[in-house]
Amino acid sequence: MDRPVIDHRSVEFAELGKCCLEGMKSVFQTSHPVIIYPSSGTGAWEAALVNTLSTGDRVLAFNAGQFATQWMKVASNLGLQVEPIDGDWHYGVDAVRIGEHLTKDSAHETKAVMVVHNETSTGVTSDIAAVRRAIDAAQHPALLMVDTISSVGSIDYRHEEWGVDVTVGGSQKGLMLPPGLSFNAIGPKALEANKHSTLPKSYWRWDEMLMHNARGFFPYTPATNLLYGLREALAMLSEEGLPNVFKRHDRLAEATRCAVRAWGLELFARNPDQYSSVLTAVLMPDGFAETALREVVLKKFNMSLGAGLGKIAGRVFRIGHLGDFNELMLAGTLAGVEMGLELAGVPHNIGGVAAALEYLTEQHRLQSTL
Amino acid sequence: MDRPVIDHRSVEFAELGKCCLEGMKSVFQTSHPVIIYPSSGTGAWEAALVNTLSTGDRVLAFNAGQFATQWMKVASNLGLQVEPIDGDWHYGVDAVRIGEHLTKDSAHETKAVMVVHNETSTGVTSDIAAVRRAIDAAQHPALLMVDTISSVGSIDYRHEEWGVDVTVGGSQKGLMLPPGLSFNAIGPKALEANKHSTLPKSYWRWDEMLMHNARGFFPYTPATNLLYGLREALAMLSEEGLPNVFKRHDRLAEATRCAVRAWGLELFARNPDQYSSVLTAVLMPDGFAETALREVVLKKFNMSLGAGLGKIAGRVFRIGHLGDFNELMLAGTLAGVEMGLELAGVPHNIGGVAAALEYLTEQHRLQSTL
Amino acid sequence: MDRPVIDHRSVEFAELGKCCLEGMKSVFQTSHPVIIYPSSGTGAWEAALVNTLSTGDRVLAFNAGQFATQWMKVASNLGLQVEPIDGDWHYGVDAVRIGEHLTKDSAHETKAVMVVHNETSTGVTSDIAAVRRAIDAAQHPALLMVDTISSVGSIDYRHEEWGVDVTVGGSQKGLMLPPGLSFNAIGPKALEANKHSTLPKSYWRWDEMLMHNARGFFPYTPATNLLYGLREALAMLSEEGLPNVFKRHDRLAEATRCAVRAWGLELFARNPDQYSSVLTAVLMPDGFAETALREVVLKKFNMSLGAGLGKIAGRVFRIGHLGDFNELMLAGTLAGVEMGLELAGVPHNIGGVAAALEYLTEQHRLQSTL
Amino acid sequence: MDRPVIDHRSVEFAELGKCCLEGMKSVFQTSHPVIIYPSSGTGAWEAALVNTLSTGDRVLAFNAGQFATQWMKVASNLGLQVEPIDGDWHYGVDAVRIGEHLTKDSAHETKAVMVVHNETSTGVTSDIAAVRRAIDAAQHPALLMVDTISSVGSIDYRHEEWGVDVTVGGSQKGLMLPPGLSFNAIGPKALEANKHSTLPKSYWRWDEMLMHNARGFFPYTPATNLLYGLREALAMLSEEGLPNVFKRHDRLAEATRCAVRAWGLELFARNPDQYSSVLTAVLMPDGFAETALREVVLKKFNMSLGAGLGKIAGRVFRIGHLGDFNELMLAGTLAGVEMGLELAGVPHNIGGVAAALEYLTEQHRLQSTL
Repeated sequence: MDRPVIDHRSVEFAELGKCCLEGMKSVFQTSHPVIIYPSSGTGAWEAALVNTLSTGDRVLAFNAGQFATQWMKVASNLGLQVEPIDGDWHYGVDAVRIGEHLTKDSAHETKAVMVVHNETSTGVTSDIAAVRRAIDAAQHPALLMVDTISSVGSIDYRHEEWGVDVTVGGSQKGLMLPPGLSFNAIGPKALEANKHSTLPKSYWRWDEMLMHNARGFFPYTPATNLLYGLREALAMLSEEGLPNVFKRHDRLAEATRCAVRAWGLELFARNPDQYSSVLTAVLMPDGFAETALREVVLKKFNMSLGAGLGKIAGRVFRIGHLGDFNELMLAGTLAGVEMGLELAGVPHNIGGVAAALEYLTEQHRLQSTL
Repeated sequence: MDRPVIDHRSVEFAELGKCCLEGMKSVFQTSHPVIIYPSSGTGAWEAALVNTLSTGDRVLAFNAGQFATQWMKVASNLGLQVEPIDGDWHYGVDAVRIGEHLTKDSAHETKAVMVVHNETSTGVTSDIAAVRRAIDAAQHPALLMVDTISSVGSIDYRHEEWGVDVTVGGSQKGLMLPPGLSFNAIGPKALEANKHSTLPKSYWRWDEMLMHNARGFFPYTPATNLLYGLREALAMLSEEGLPNVFKRHDRLAEATRCAVRAWGLELFARNPDQYSSVLTAVLMPDGFAETALREVVLKKFNMSLGAGLGKIAGRVFRIGHLGDFNELMLAGTLAGVEMGLELAGVPHNIGGVAAALEYLTEQHRLQSTL
Repeated sequence: MDRPVIDHRSVEFAELGKCCLEGMKSVFQTSHPVIIYPSSGTGAWEAALVNTLSTGDRVLAFNAGQFATQWMKVASNLGLQVEPIDGDWHYGVDAVRIGEHLTKDSAHETKAVMVVHNETSTGVTSDIAAVRRAIDAAQHPALLMVDTISSVGSIDYRHEEWGVDVTVGGSQKGLMLPPGLSFNAIGPKALEANKHSTLPKSYWRWDEMLMHNARGFFPYTPATNLLYGLREALAMLSEEGLPNVFKRHDRLAEATRCAVRAWGLELFARNPDQYSSVLTAVLMPDGFAETALREVVLKKFNMSLGAGLGKIAGRVFRIGHLGDFNELMLAGTLAGVEMGLELAGVPHNIGGVAAALEYLTEQHRLQSTL
Repeated sequence: MDRPVIDHRSVEFAELGKCCLEGMKSVFQTSHPVIIYPSSGTGAWEAALVNTLSTGDRVLAFNAGQFATQWMKVASNLGLQVEPIDGDWHYGVDAVRIGEHLTKDSAHETKAVMVVHNETSTGVTSDIAAVRRAIDAAQHPALLMVDTISSVGSIDYRHEEWGVDVTVGGSQKGLMLPPGLSFNAIGPKALEANKHSTLPKSYWRWDEMLMHNARGFFPYTPATNLLYGLREALAMLSEEGLPNVFKRHDRLAEATRCAVRAWGLELFARNPDQYSSVLTAVLMPDGFAETALREVVLKKFNMSLGAGLGKIAGRVFRIGHLGDFNELMLAGTLAGVEMGLELAGVPHNIGGVAAALEYLTEQHRLQSTL
């Protein structure tokens, strides 16, 4: 990204723009348009709502983590009626409960269903295809909106195959960039809804974006330097191959869980089918605060662990293992946690790093045998 | 900016955040808060409106250029009633006409007055203090909102002394950064209006920003790498001294106009008191399109001249002279224009560069004598 | 060059090494080996001598500038007997005088002839092919050694066609890199001489370099980051095409001379066939020191002009126009000189920049007509 | 280092030059001059010899590793008579044997003693003060020359206190820079010897360097961009404090040895007083080649382990732990080795990483208690 800014009305820019817009389609696994905003991921949450809904519309939101909670707050801020389904944060989105709600809504007052694919606060990944099936089974026209800010480019996500109407993404996780770009992948039903949406909107307008994007341009000044970075990130993902990127994250995540089990600590996520491949949240033993642990790890080893967020603040710490990350970086990370647990006096068994290494070694041995 | 992204919840980040937030106050010449958004300048236009106004509110907008036109469109998009005063684009904002409008509005239905400080499409700078006086003379409570996207950090601008309520700025001109940051400088009356504003808002909310900014943080992920750049830009402006920065731009702008006069071409701006110090728009002779000129300059000399925008497309070209710019870069720029005029067959006299150099030499001689 | 250092024994490094070694052959226009040292150009001067000569050997050096003088000093430092031909610094190497010296040396005691292709201190380029013809006409076996530190990659130079035995080059001029790499292009006769050379040598040894270079490696730690830069510079030269690079320098140099003539100043170089295309040395009018001029240009316009060097210190200033340089950068440079002449009170006519622009415009017009 | 090259004759450059030259004195712990060459470390080996010795001089070299062997070859290449003491590579320099040799040399034909402080091929650090005492005890005037290319800035080294005459250093290890700078720290006796040295020299001449260095300049083009980097590296070392830097390396090295012992592998270095704090060489079990191990680690984990060099090629692998290195990077490194040993089928016990972490945790616990 360390390059001069070019004129965003030039032919050279149009090539960059087209390359990024096309590349993002492959990352979201869709043939429909993806929009790129010069904003944080929070902006793309807002964009998904203001482009499809009208003031006072009802939205159904499954609240299974802090980021779901925050997205709901965005919806409320924008004047939507948010109907929450309070989930157990140890688990992912419950498609059955969504289906029940929608079935009851025979008047089709619910206009959209908001779910988070990978909940960064809990380390739980939800089954999005199941949510789609539940909506369809209820024969309900609500739009399906999915937040993939922490999963896109790291965990398999299929916007089109899974029938998602709007997907929200960001640049600073799986795409390995600084924050400053956010995304909306848009399906045909959402584009149709856009025509009737009356929520006030200007910066986030899809229609103007799509009109300019068709020729590789943007309706207002884009974050050119981040687009250079995005082009490079897309090339890196393409070189490794998305399926390999996903497998790498799966492997590192399971190794992390091996370490947690060996420490005798408890994973926050309780359903193995829902374990996140990009981060792992770990419960602190009763009576021990995560703050002390994170402080000692930061001070002694210059490593930032994730804090507990929202209603589980103080009770969990989070280990990230996403983006441009490999086995040895994970070993360093887990070593920092293991030494930190000891120095902070948190009850645990030693051997977490060793367990992770044993798993990783075995995986590589199997690979070589194939 | 070429540095690793740091944790935006860390102590190290808070220092960066505070430094940028304080520094921006000095650039806007205000003691009141400045808000920094991870967005293009267009976002800060929207933020000024949604934080202070309510759906259906009437705003008075002085339209003297393409960027004024676009800001008006943002207001319309957001559901505001835009009352335009169509200005002559050759001139700046006419405070008298604004005063007349407001005097007639005895019911105080107009909630805000929107003006552009430096109109990038025309090279005209307006007298903001005069607009304030006109509003006051009309004893009208409308908020004064000013766009300084292309002037802040390059042309003297005094948010507090001039009584502006909301000032809109961006990172990519006078602050010498890539696009991706935008600003709202906020006065007390605007903060008061914020309490009663009902336009839906979330990403742009001042209240949450101010709450987090108090400790150097942001309510959602900031564009950390651009903040590094902003800190450096603020240090550069401070080292040179804002008054010296302004004088440098004044000098380079007058040199540019010397060149234009020597070429026998006409300045688009007609009132010398309103000449912009950051860019100069030049009228093409009748029958000659700017496109051919800009193409030859780009192809032969790899330099992008500004195109005519909006209703003066095809009739003017624009020479930028702002940011980290000096005498020799200006000489190169004017040389490109002079050679381009000749190669594109545009009728003109030679000697523009020579006239600019004569003026600059004289200025430096006077400086040395002092 | 802003990349991590890679292992200089790795396969990845070997590809980089081969790319640079091959690319440098095309720049020197030779099919024989080119050696790359991690050193300043001064080191490559030394390398040419210690690899081919023996203690006490006699070398004939044509002294027509400060860099020739310094290379002679290197030779003396190394214990060689330097036989100087004192040239008139206003002119290039006089092949006739070299021929006369060699003809008299019937015992063939002279082992090498040292000449500078482009003399940076005087702005004079010499006819290397003529020197070769003079040596051949004298039927003398002396090696021909040529310094191209300031010309390689900017002025047409043909190591093989012109029959040069050792060519010396550096990274920081025509190759547009920071200083830190230097080159020896080696012909077959020089390689043969290497076998019998007894001057002590280790760091500069060709034999070990060539042995390792064959596989893309180096006998000791190379300056890896500069090699990344070199690969990029070679790609840029190749994209523009060497003949076009040479023409661009010729054009910018003639424009500079147009300016000098218009100022009524005198070019230091007196033979038009020997005008340098990479820099122009200008005589100061009698009674005016270059120091004052250079100081005012540095202080007012932040531009460094070249000082007079060696025996012409104080009497000339030098304008560089090489590397990644274009019309508009030249216009800025000449503008700085023209304003500096005025501010420093140096007698001159105005209109230098204008004359340069007129010439450049005409050249571009002719190009377009073709 | 990512900055434009500045004029190396300017005032701005002189400040950079002085800062680097002074800073290097503190790193070598000397009040006498340090010289900075634009070259690889190999060049500084040559410089130490050509500046102090004359053709045919005898030098005594203690050969306890591959880099000692290579320095001896440089001396031979330069026409010196190298008298080797063949040491056992498992151990450091034997000061007693040096003393014996010098005592026998009553004619004082030996002009210099060459030893390596930290032998990168073996992971052995030698007692330099003991060598000085042995020379003094023999009442012998030979100069003491020491290679610190892999130790300077990482292991405690005291040029002045230990009575070293010439110390050789490089930029790419403890100074955390790319290769391209090398150093000679010079004592008074070496400066005196310089006056009588007759080996041919030019690029490496101390006298011209010192003359120009006095004002912050260099006699020929320096590697400016690396000097920027050096200034930054010196600031980093100064901020952490050299004693803390040394302790950090000691701690990481002992942790590495804990891992090696837990694996049941043998350290190449046999005397605990001589264990290197910057790298650890490990013996392969009989019948197992290091090549296979290094290949699997490179392929699977993208990590380069050091190969066995010289006469121990194939029998050892080397783990580096120097420069800008911390606990978690070491954990990652050791994890790569442990998994590599398993995947390559090298007989070993598991638990190396765990042993290293246990040691590091204990060290940090003790620190906290203090």
